[in-house]
Amino acid sequence: MAKDEVILLDFWPSMFGMRLRIALAEKEVKYEYREEDVWNKSPLLLQMNPIHKKVPVLIHNGKPICESNIGVEYIDEVWKDKVPLLPSDPYDRAQARFWADYIDKKLFDFGRTIWTTKGEEQETAKKDFIEYLKVLEGALGEKPYFGGDNFGFVDISLIGFYCWFYAYETYGNFSIEADCPKLVAWAKRCIQRDSVAKSLPDQHKVCEFVSVASQKFGIE
Amino acid sequence: MAKDEVILLDFWPSMFGMRLRIALAEKEVKYEYREEDVWNKSPLLLQMNPIHKKVPVLIHNGKPICESNIGVEYIDEVWKDKVPLLPSDPYDRAQARFWADYIDKKLFDFGRTIWTTKGEEQETAKKDFIEYLKVLEGALGEKPYFGGDNFGFVDISLIGFYCWFYAYETYGNFSIEADCPKLVAWAKRCIQRDSVAKSLPDQHKVCEFVSVASQKFGIE
Repeated sequence: MAKDEVILLDFWPSMFGMRLRIALAEKEVKYEYREEDVWNKSPLLLQMNPIHKKVPVLIHNGKPICESNIGVEYIDEVWKDKVPLLPSDPYDRAQARFWADYIDKKLFDFGRTIWTTKGEEQETAKKDFIEYLKVLEGALGEKPYFGGDNFGFVDISLIGFYCWFYAYETYGNFSIEADCPKLVAWAKRCIQRDSVAKSLPDQHKVCEFVSVASQKFGIE
Repeated sequence: MAKDEVILLDFWPSMFGMRLRIALAEKEVKYEYREEDVWNKSPLLLQMNPIHKKVPVLIHNGKPICESNIGVEYIDEVWKDKVPLLPSDPYDRAQARFWADYIDKKLFDFGRTIWTTKGEEQETAKKDFIEYLKVLEGALGEKPYFGGDNFGFVDISLIGFYCWFYAYETYGNFSIEADCPKLVAWAKRCIQRDSVAKSLPDQHKVCEFVSVASQKFGIE
């Protein structure tokens, strides 16, 4: 597949963009990374994702793939000669999709509420966020990765949130590790992988970004 | 696959349940339909879907599959000897998943707001709902079905909403067909199929259900 042209429209703190970076790294796909200014979106982003107008967008030979979990499945299906990201058994695949969907439905909004609100609303968001992480910890169980012995789709879907934990904890004044030690141990296991290590920004840099974003939103 | 045991925990007005009914019918899978009382959920439902506690749940040989689009993909993967529901090309598959995801993110909540609110909130919901349907109409284009010539995943994902249109229109006092004639023509094409015809309840029955539900919620 030497003539494949792969472009990733992304924004460095995006946990959704991180999914695609990790999946492309796992598959050893060479691609051009293009940083977007999410407060001043490029004409290419608006053209490639006219419906949601959001990063990340994977562009493969000129054609856009939007929504990050869908992009990861696409990468898994196109570059299928490399190690698979989704399990092969239909039931295990359905379970993997269920948890990736759960992560999408629960974590982002409640995580954001932690750093964009104060008082009671923030306390409720923290409680809910921890509850959702505990559900995920339960799904992980004693396995090294969500799919079992191998790093895969659900791990990719979740691990980007890990570099935001420090920001959530700083703004929410709580400890995620105290409540979810096994999940944090899983995250530390994941970041040992090259594909993850090179795709996730430093947690302190994310926290600085959150500080700047809070000021932009007029929160601080 | 003679010894497959397939059970569907469902609730007749659920457009999400309809997806699984249609997919099972398309694949000619025999199954046991079990009607749930969503205001008094069965122990089996709570056991099979402890995370979301929602219908529909597909139970295949004792194992639950939750979230309807995931269930349709599962059905497509397990009973793959029958006509496929998802396209085979990875890019077309990603597009199909994108639109099914769009339908999930946009239609249900805004549709519900039409019959659970009044005044300005209802007017905004109607406007947004029509806008989302127009986007879908644009995606359909001049094709007979979303995937092209064959009825498939996106059609299954969307068609269940059609039997709710009459209720939305009655409560919102507007005409969906006036704004989206091609989408309504597509829906009329879909309900010619046996799999759809036998899976969708009568639109007047849905409207009566909405009336009862409104009273339960204290809206009327």
